[in-house]
Amino acid sequence: MKTLIITILLLFPMLELPMQNQTERYILTSVNRNIRLDSWHLSSRDLPGKFAEPWSIRKYTLHGGRQEGVDLIEYESGSLRLVLSPTRGMSVIRVDRRDVRLGWDSPVKEIVHPREINLQNRGGLGWLEGFNEWMVRCGLEWAGHPGQDRFVNNTGDIAEMDLTLHGRIGNIPASEVEVIVETEPVPRIRLRGRVDERQFYGPKLELWTEIAIVPGAGSFRIDDQIHNYSSDPQEFELIYHANFGPPLLGRGSRFTGPIREVIPFNAHAARSTPRFAEYDGPTKGFVEQVYVMQPFADEQGRTMVMLSNQAEDRAVTMSFLTNQLPWFTLWKNLTTLEEGYVTGLEPGTSSPANRSIERAAGRVPKLAPGETRHFGIEVEVRIGASEVQAAAKTIEQIRAGRSPQLSAKTIR
Amino acid sequence: MKTLIITILLLFPMLELPMQNQTERYILTSVNRNIRLDSWHLSSRDLPGKFAEPWSIRKYTLHGGRQEGVDLIEYESGSLRLVLSPTRGMSVIRVDRRDVRLGWDSPVKEIVHPREINLQNRGGLGWLEGFNEWMVRCGLEWAGHPGQDRFVNNTGDIAEMDLTLHGRIGNIPASEVEVIVETEPVPRIRLRGRVDERQFYGPKLELWTEIAIVPGAGSFRIDDQIHNYSSDPQEFELIYHANFGPPLLGRGSRFTGPIREVIPFNAHAARSTPRFAEYDGPTKGFVEQVYVMQPFADEQGRTMVMLSNQAEDRAVTMSFLTNQLPWFTLWKNLTTLEEGYVTGLEPGTSSPANRSIERAAGRVPKLAPGETRHFGIEVEVRIGASEVQAAAKTIEQIRAGRSPQLSAKTIR
Amino acid sequence: MKTLIITILLLFPMLELPMQNQTERYILTSVNRNIRLDSWHLSSRDLPGKFAEPWSIRKYTLHGGRQEGVDLIEYESGSLRLVLSPTRGMSVIRVDRRDVRLGWDSPVKEIVHPREINLQNRGGLGWLEGFNEWMVRCGLEWAGHPGQDRFVNNTGDIAEMDLTLHGRIGNIPASEVEVIVETEPVPRIRLRGRVDERQFYGPKLELWTEIAIVPGAGSFRIDDQIHNYSSDPQEFELIYHANFGPPLLGRGSRFTGPIREVIPFNAHAARSTPRFAEYDGPTKGFVEQVYVMQPFADEQGRTMVMLSNQAEDRAVTMSFLTNQLPWFTLWKNLTTLEEGYVTGLEPGTSSPANRSIERAAGRVPKLAPGETRHFGIEVEVRIGASEVQAAAKTIEQIRAGRSPQLSAKTIR
Repeated sequence: MKTLIITILLLFPMLELPMQNQTERYILTSVNRNIRLDSWHLSSRDLPGKFAEPWSIRKYTLHGGRQEGVDLIEYESGSLRLVLSPTRGMSVIRVDRRDVRLGWDSPVKEIVHPREINLQNRGGLGWLEGFNEWMVRCGLEWAGHPGQDRFVNNTGDIAEMDLTLHGRIGNIPASEVEVIVETEPVPRIRLRGRVDERQFYGPKLELWTEIAIVPGAGSFRIDDQIHNYSSDPQEFELIYHANFGPPLLGRGSRFTGPIREVIPFNAHAARSTPRFAEYDGPTKGFVEQVYVMQPFADEQGRTMVMLSNQAEDRAVTMSFLTNQLPWFTLWKNLTTLEEGYVTGLEPGTSSPANRSIERAAGRVPKLAPGETRHFGIEVEVRIGASEVQAAAKTIEQIRAGRSPQLSAKTIR
Repeated sequence: MKTLIITILLLFPMLELPMQNQTERYILTSVNRNIRLDSWHLSSRDLPGKFAEPWSIRKYTLHGGRQEGVDLIEYESGSLRLVLSPTRGMSVIRVDRRDVRLGWDSPVKEIVHPREINLQNRGGLGWLEGFNEWMVRCGLEWAGHPGQDRFVNNTGDIAEMDLTLHGRIGNIPASEVEVIVETEPVPRIRLRGRVDERQFYGPKLELWTEIAIVPGAGSFRIDDQIHNYSSDPQEFELIYHANFGPPLLGRGSRFTGPIREVIPFNAHAARSTPRFAEYDGPTKGFVEQVYVMQPFADEQGRTMVMLSNQAEDRAVTMSFLTNQLPWFTLWKNLTTLEEGYVTGLEPGTSSPANRSIERAAGRVPKLAPGETRHFGIEVEVRIGASEVQAAAKTIEQIRAGRSPQLSAKTIR
Repeated sequence: MKTLIITILLLFPMLELPMQNQTERYILTSVNRNIRLDSWHLSSRDLPGKFAEPWSIRKYTLHGGRQEGVDLIEYESGSLRLVLSPTRGMSVIRVDRRDVRLGWDSPVKEIVHPREINLQNRGGLGWLEGFNEWMVRCGLEWAGHPGQDRFVNNTGDIAEMDLTLHGRIGNIPASEVEVIVETEPVPRIRLRGRVDERQFYGPKLELWTEIAIVPGAGSFRIDDQIHNYSSDPQEFELIYHANFGPPLLGRGSRFTGPIREVIPFNAHAARSTPRFAEYDGPTKGFVEQVYVMQPFADEQGRTMVMLSNQAEDRAVTMSFLTNQLPWFTLWKNLTTLEEGYVTGLEPGTSSPANRSIERAAGRVPKLAPGETRHFGIEVEVRIGASEVQAAAKTIEQIRAGRSPQLSAKTIR
């Protein structure tokens, strides 16, 4: 039953239910109402008799160093704990289910306030000063590598601008933050935030993010909408940069997915394409390897990818629609623990190359004036061999015996 | 009588009155005294028997998103309401008098904290990320278009630096903010703030801004002073970037001024110079047109410009001394409402071209060591045909039958 | 006795004492514990019977303008007062002992929050927007002049980046701030802070700073440690930029040190090398002169430099180990008081040239993986001819009759 409902929600993610007595909305931040709660708390005990599975949500503010003033929201239910940061564009800092962590050990130790970060630092790599989330969205006007690209300036001329790594959305504080508590048709907690990427003579994009969790479940769902408020079409890119260190990542860990084609990012990655799905332990001097892929989907257009540990008793799966997120990037950064031993599973509209490359390759979508587009990812933390095998079976069904084609060409 | 006093104040703007019993000073922010009031309130009811016209002032702090921590001051008396932001360099966010708004609908929806803005973004156009004020000052070390210009660095050498659009003063938080309440010679509220543009091996400029309002009046006065604390002469530029959308701007709206010469900014604007004073409605694909003008003045050196609606029953006038503000820029950005349908009436020391162009054209003034310079603008919201006609008559008297010369040359 | 202990502490700066009953630790800021005290106070009266010399420490927060949210710590005992700012990388703002001030009158009047500063401004000179401390550390990944240098980027390639003036450490808020109060072996107050310069694909450096003061003394000690958390060797630079205006700086003031060699920074400085140790009064149009030196040391490796006034009855001395800080820079900026009449005495690992020059000259040290390096400077404010003469005698003993060689070459 639970799986059925989740499947329904996956296929019709934005099915808006009428606001019933069973739905409560709590405003934590609102620029429209001039609200930002410094701390806040809600739990199933505050709503007696409504939830079989206990849960709690806590909102608090970080202090000290470069994290001064950063908002965090912490959700906990049963063995699942999820922490996200409205200040950092609704990024999900980490998720824990029992002994499995979604997240990694970045050399960046604080949850850095965007006001501390100059994205233009280090030749456009300033984004890396705050990079330690489990999942950070890259976008919206652009994602991917820094470097020059063209735009139309205020005098109507084509001008050049320096794009910075992975765009701005991960370093914009949310303007509206709310928690929606539903009891029907299924008990569900929705952590929602609106992040605006707006500028005069620039994009007029609004991103509504949502993390929806059924209390007691080992999975959660990301449901985002991007709306273009411009009267002109607007290019955009969106990459879900989900990052994993131990315990899911380790020697013998494995990526599994129903992959049509694997395109190495550059010549360096190309030398290891045949081993793209395999992982070594932390390796001194390892230089990142990036593989861009197009997954196969089932008849509903859904695909699933998985990262599993060597014992194949712990895994994470990400399930999404390939018409929403056609490109999937696997980032392998198998350097030492000190430098950041991490792999990224990154569904996206595009590859992480500079937007100028993406545009030339036809991988930069456009939103029509007033258009809204939806993006959904179902994330499940799988514990025990049977949960892992069930996912492997699903992936195998989508794959349907087809093997990935290993591209001889590179992205750039 | 009121007009006479306003005229006196216009001609002798800095006539400092002795601080009498009738003058009260309220400190809202002071770096010297380590004060910043999070919220504050004062009204005529707190000073019983002193004011015939009721008024109130409210200071509060914005929360959420990119506006977290931004200070606003809201003045209200009769039908006039004025909102300014100490955090954004004492910019005036908007003014309302009955059904007339001074202001516009920018795609930027929040009052953005300067700490959220990197002025160097987008090739020096980062200023546009916070641009939604009715009136923002551009300056002080430079104003106008981004691009390279030279300066003297710490080793005494001529070096190159990238100027950013419209300088820094609109994105520097005020260091001193005070409200002065006077009952004599006329009841008057003065909202004052000091904004410093100071740097080692750089400018040592201080700007004292003032908005003075006679309770009950439909007008107010901007009175600013810039002081050079350097022992060297200091170049500066100052442009009052006042922006108007509906209802004053619309199809059939009209600019009126006693103009000596109209210089189109570039070849694009030059194609429409003959229609510089006329406005169309929102037009998809419209590219900004900019006209730089020198106004005529009356015998006291005063000029007046006006933006009126099609029905000629609503208007705003700006009156100033041409020896203080010799150049006037008309910015027409008649694009769609979504993109920002807006026109700028911009008295200034200079045109909005890059400082290197302004310097070559002799339009960059210098302050001697220790020099203070004054700038005053009387702004009046005019409601009803008779108020509009009175202004038209004043302008006509200054014009004295002379027609503007339309320059064949462009600014750049 | 006091001198002996100070000498011991100088030679073995990081001699960690067991935490006894006599040692109390007070946490003011901690990112690990999510603490940042807005205000705090402690004095010898709170610890009755433990201190012969009264002292007090006050922590407070600045408000208004560009100093909104800046933390200050103020220590006072007898005639000594010291103010430091955790928010500005634990820089020491100023020190006073009776009528002697360590510090200067910068054109920058506020203690500017790093979030207000874009280090990339003005071609990489943004650091100058907040520069008004008595002592600011320059570093850690680089110090010195702005300009291009190479680094290894995320794809393993050599890339170019624009270094900004004097690096980042002086504009990073401290992540941990603590006050340690010791009564044995000698009464001592230690003001400590940890400042992290960490980035993914970048440095993983932590700086622990300490100012240790014996209540009642006219001296204090800077004791810093830098630790490299990377698994790779890490280049670093560290310059203690200590700045002095009146009363120590004035016409007839003098620099004294046991100097082996004086290298002028550039051709301009080279024209005045023979007068490097002498000072004129404020001089309009003066362009900075910089001299880089290698001091001699005594048998324990210790050297001492001094700045004394014309009457030779007021002075400051800085004493340090030349194996820790082999290079010493004298910065003479003898311009007008308005522009910033100041001299810098700057012990460092390097000269203040761009890192690319320093690397080529072999003046950029490296930290091995996991390595910690210590840096100590004993600072003494000397009042009265006898205290000044005692220092002169110490310096003379180290000099041992040797005269500085004046280099014909320049640093750049």
